[in-house]
Amino acid sequence: MDGFVKVGVIGPSGYTGRELLRILANHPYAQVVEVYGHESAGVYLNQLYPFLPEKVGNLKVEDFNKESLSADVYFLCVPHGKAIDYAALLLENGKKVVDLSADFRLKDEELYEKYYQFKHPYLSLLKEAVYGMPEFRKKEIEKARLVANPGCLARASLLGLHPFVEEGVIDYEKMVVIDVKTGVSGAGRKPRQDLHFPEMNEDFRPYSPVRHRHLPEILQEALSSGAANSFLPFFVPHLIPADRGILASIYFKLKEKAALNDLKEIARNKYAESPFVKILEDDLPSIKRVRGSNFVEINLSLSESSEVVVFVALDNLVSGASGTAVHNMNIMFGIKEESGLTSLLPL
Amino acid sequence: MDGFVKVGVIGPSGYTGRELLRILANHPYAQVVEVYGHESAGVYLNQLYPFLPEKVGNLKVEDFNKESLSADVYFLCVPHGKAIDYAALLLENGKKVVDLSADFRLKDEELYEKYYQFKHPYLSLLKEAVYGMPEFRKKEIEKARLVANPGCLARASLLGLHPFVEEGVIDYEKMVVIDVKTGVSGAGRKPRQDLHFPEMNEDFRPYSPVRHRHLPEILQEALSSGAANSFLPFFVPHLIPADRGILASIYFKLKEKAALNDLKEIARNKYAESPFVKILEDDLPSIKRVRGSNFVEINLSLSESSEVVVFVALDNLVSGASGTAVHNMNIMFGIKEESGLTSLLPL
Amino acid sequence: MDGFVKVGVIGPSGYTGRELLRILANHPYAQVVEVYGHESAGVYLNQLYPFLPEKVGNLKVEDFNKESLSADVYFLCVPHGKAIDYAALLLENGKKVVDLSADFRLKDEELYEKYYQFKHPYLSLLKEAVYGMPEFRKKEIEKARLVANPGCLARASLLGLHPFVEEGVIDYEKMVVIDVKTGVSGAGRKPRQDLHFPEMNEDFRPYSPVRHRHLPEILQEALSSGAANSFLPFFVPHLIPADRGILASIYFKLKEKAALNDLKEIARNKYAESPFVKILEDDLPSIKRVRGSNFVEINLSLSESSEVVVFVALDNLVSGASGTAVHNMNIMFGIKEESGLTSLLPL
Amino acid sequence: MDGFVKVGVIGPSGYTGRELLRILANHPYAQVVEVYGHESAGVYLNQLYPFLPEKVGNLKVEDFNKESLSADVYFLCVPHGKAIDYAALLLENGKKVVDLSADFRLKDEELYEKYYQFKHPYLSLLKEAVYGMPEFRKKEIEKARLVANPGCLARASLLGLHPFVEEGVIDYEKMVVIDVKTGVSGAGRKPRQDLHFPEMNEDFRPYSPVRHRHLPEILQEALSSGAANSFLPFFVPHLIPADRGILASIYFKLKEKAALNDLKEIARNKYAESPFVKILEDDLPSIKRVRGSNFVEINLSLSESSEVVVFVALDNLVSGASGTAVHNMNIMFGIKEESGLTSLLPL
Repeated sequence: MDGFVKVGVIGPSGYTGRELLRILANHPYAQVVEVYGHESAGVYLNQLYPFLPEKVGNLKVEDFNKESLSADVYFLCVPHGKAIDYAALLLENGKKVVDLSADFRLKDEELYEKYYQFKHPYLSLLKEAVYGMPEFRKKEIEKARLVANPGCLARASLLGLHPFVEEGVIDYEKMVVIDVKTGVSGAGRKPRQDLHFPEMNEDFRPYSPVRHRHLPEILQEALSSGAANSFLPFFVPHLIPADRGILASIYFKLKEKAALNDLKEIARNKYAESPFVKILEDDLPSIKRVRGSNFVEINLSLSESSEVVVFVALDNLVSGASGTAVHNMNIMFGIKEESGLTSLLPL
Repeated sequence: MDGFVKVGVIGPSGYTGRELLRILANHPYAQVVEVYGHESAGVYLNQLYPFLPEKVGNLKVEDFNKESLSADVYFLCVPHGKAIDYAALLLENGKKVVDLSADFRLKDEELYEKYYQFKHPYLSLLKEAVYGMPEFRKKEIEKARLVANPGCLARASLLGLHPFVEEGVIDYEKMVVIDVKTGVSGAGRKPRQDLHFPEMNEDFRPYSPVRHRHLPEILQEALSSGAANSFLPFFVPHLIPADRGILASIYFKLKEKAALNDLKEIARNKYAESPFVKILEDDLPSIKRVRGSNFVEINLSLSESSEVVVFVALDNLVSGASGTAVHNMNIMFGIKEESGLTSLLPL
Repeated sequence: MDGFVKVGVIGPSGYTGRELLRILANHPYAQVVEVYGHESAGVYLNQLYPFLPEKVGNLKVEDFNKESLSADVYFLCVPHGKAIDYAALLLENGKKVVDLSADFRLKDEELYEKYYQFKHPYLSLLKEAVYGMPEFRKKEIEKARLVANPGCLARASLLGLHPFVEEGVIDYEKMVVIDVKTGVSGAGRKPRQDLHFPEMNEDFRPYSPVRHRHLPEILQEALSSGAANSFLPFFVPHLIPADRGILASIYFKLKEKAALNDLKEIARNKYAESPFVKILEDDLPSIKRVRGSNFVEINLSLSESSEVVVFVALDNLVSGASGTAVHNMNIMFGIKEESGLTSLLPL
Repeated sequence: MDGFVKVGVIGPSGYTGRELLRILANHPYAQVVEVYGHESAGVYLNQLYPFLPEKVGNLKVEDFNKESLSADVYFLCVPHGKAIDYAALLLENGKKVVDLSADFRLKDEELYEKYYQFKHPYLSLLKEAVYGMPEFRKKEIEKARLVANPGCLARASLLGLHPFVEEGVIDYEKMVVIDVKTGVSGAGRKPRQDLHFPEMNEDFRPYSPVRHRHLPEILQEALSSGAANSFLPFFVPHLIPADRGILASIYFKLKEKAALNDLKEIARNKYAESPFVKILEDDLPSIKRVRGSNFVEINLSLSESSEVVVFVALDNLVSGASGTAVHNMNIMFGIKEESGLTSLLPL
């Protein structure tokens, strides 16, 4: 196993944990060596996920034990508020951490009280953590000990906004609207009345139309890449009756008239180096075309009155969570960044 | 059959035709007496739709024949551009007409050339036709010979916009966004590669993001109820992987700060007399809760920066097409307006 | 309310209760006057089901109180084992009862211990109860005080088997297979991990392949209409990723060669008087074509080696539960049997 | 590209062609070098399938040209009847062929007239072709020039039947029923009215209940592995409202009483060497758990009267078509048989 990054996964039983194991199982340069879980302690991974190849499937889920840490990097797939202590302890033990929860995404600790109802105990780690958007912060991620993997809806929104924020073309005096739609796995694996199959099937509905927890991440990152202080998009999520996929429709007004192709060129340039983000020619983004893959599809339209809609499609569990987590790991360990990810073809 | 409105249906084989027959089959004061179709001529209705009760199912579809017109009112369920001549001829023969195509929706004949690629031959009928939104134009519909039934996406959008346009609370200097999502039956009954089950299932995607044909209807009606001349919403439709249902998310900025409840009160007042439009208390609109019914659910949210999102849910084939067509007929014939429609319970 | 059957519903919050209220809301000769529930006590029906018309929606769910019984008939929509005491008490008070649970379906009390894990306390009521298949036991239902509404999968199976059992054409020495598929609402309204939308969507799977609780009902009724004592079909249910609908595929071998049309004629004759069962000409049964309606579609195919497959499609919540419950009520009260049911058109 | 098997694909635009390209794109020892198509000639593969990695996506679809054949093996993904001439010509040119159509599956040429309505012109090739079930005919496939890839429903059925046919436990005097259910991609990519999303969604229905074209394959292979001459299963397919997946429920009666575990042991032994077929312990097979993968799940149940149901789940496009085609290629070229296939994890 020389030359492999040794990986630990904490929290294998939710959708992000499962997806991470699915991805890492085929990673050419990484190997899962430890899996910690509470509810699933004592179970072998192939009992949870019979599709896993032997080398991963034969691992036993153990109760977390700081004495036995042998991996190089740990992925935290635990609920918000539960990752904090794991991260602190792991860093203390010289490990790297990719946290898929929200616990280190926000720089302003007060936002944790407002949006997540807890007081954050590790302000220096908050400060140190790098917000894991590989397209924007690759250099920082390369050197990071602690990467805060973005929220799925935030990531889709930021991928659409970023080129135009950086380029300074948005008129912030007008409204900016992010109307985002997500497949049901985005709501987690826990059964819920409104997500019971006969309740969710054939439905489509908005939820959390104000104060969604992904809004402060979007704000923080947009501001850091040059958005006006007044920037406050209207961010409204909706549920799609499908397993996976996010389609973000992002609306803003241009400061000045521009041609559609020049706008697309801005996006093409920003993502020229990104192995996963595609600016489409004619097609409009589709969640099915990226289903199960780490690809992101972007296209835009321009109205007669200089308004733009940017469409972003990605898989909420892959590019929106575990795929990007692996992408971040690749960068942290100096592996070719697309390793283990380009082979995830859509399905 | 005394006391019954005698109804003719032209174009029974598409989704709006089928839905109309489904609704009229249980109408307490109307009776389908003639059905005309081209492709389906010679076939009995219960061969097309075995669920129809005998009195309707036993009707034979005939090729249109102006000599045999015995109904009081005709519903035109034919493609855009094909309804014009039927309507002219039927009116000439003293019949009333509810046209479910777009052929009489727009007052400005030039828009037909721009959006529908034909030159409209009956300008006086264009002028005479009443745009069939029962919630807004009941008095005109009562006296109408020719009602232009609204486009499904336009109807959902207008129901959400109207109270706030009339009340004058919208800041038209800011962007107005209508992000609308529709079930696949909204794209018609004709098979298409991108609507083939294995292509559409598990997908969600935008379409026609600029210049959708329902936009000029929305503009026309909004302007006539008081929108600023500069009003030009950004109107973007998306396809939901579900049979039926429209969810419109309508975003605008308030001219002045207002409380959420005052805004809801505006909507409640505007629709106080409407038997079908419900302003929800706490729930957000859901397309499943109105599926198959003529009900419309509306609710709204207010951001911290005085932006409003109005959510409207309705069934595209019922409230968005054939249910409203029957609603219009009821009004035209002085029947209690909810007749035959309140018994359509969601499924 | 003179001339109306006054109806009480016990257990409004599950899928059969909801469906019953949906159907009764449009019934021309029945009126819901009392609703009892435990969890939902204190709530108005239109809070549970906003689509209900006022006269039903304005009813308040109350905790059951035997002092206030004013209805003529009560529908029991409670879990298996919970209906027994209600039924006994209601009958004692001179009421009629349609029980949608399994508590009075089986004549042999020992089967309750084997299949439902309880000892049945009212053997005389077990004996008295009529198994509510309107197509087979109309005369008994007319005089019944207590009707045991059939299980949904049992009803579909019996409708397919019955004509051929009665006619004596089945070779019981060979295997009889009932491969039945049901929409997810058949598994109830309670959230469950394996019915969580992202787990059930895009899946199809068998369950309870031996000893399903509907098997003894099927046996009992088939034996009573003439099946050989050795009759023991292999009964295997599967889950369809759809809300509603049962498709039963019933396989048996003929005793003697027969022509397909003669077999269809047997079915046509048996159901000649039934307002809901249709023997199709060319089409094969489809759950969508009966979705939401009380109709049943049947067709059959014959192999080259004298094997028959009978296909039966019905809506599990309507013909498979609440629609048939209302059908039984109609018969018990001498109302035209299709009242309130033919207007339920498929959707 | 030394050491790689050079692959040609004929017919890239249907579902089996697409799936083949998806699989081959990640194959460690094979490389697509030529793609021929008629309708799609002149188009680059990444225009058809933007998800393909560059080395495959950059290939241009060409009209077939026998002068330019540089691959070692060709996959024929063309309609039935169209593969014959390609196969003959390719073999003549010293190439190997895996045919995904039915053109070489049947040994008895008369069956082509009966089931496929054409007269087969190459009887010696019919005789030479190996029916490509890697689990049963590995030795023959190793030496084959021409492999006839099995029909998807036939493959699922045979995987379930085979162990028990070979073991001789089936009572052929009784009926054998194969009730098989398939996702909609099994019906092909061509749009069809009854597969239009709003017609197929929420439906479930049987089709071709007698004389399905996969029946003669099943017969031929079962007979060759020891079934009685009287063996004629009743084979009935149904459509599941899902993209992918086959669930076969196979019913037969045992000659003699046996314990469930002994029966499972038979299956375990037969598939002990197979890298893809799993005999489940407690779970029942689920199409979702194998979705997109080459795995096959099998489990069985035993009734009190010695009847057995064998459940088989597989992905119709992978194990049911293109995955097994690649599996066959691997064996034909002496590559480790699971190459390129175990990394296809379910989604």
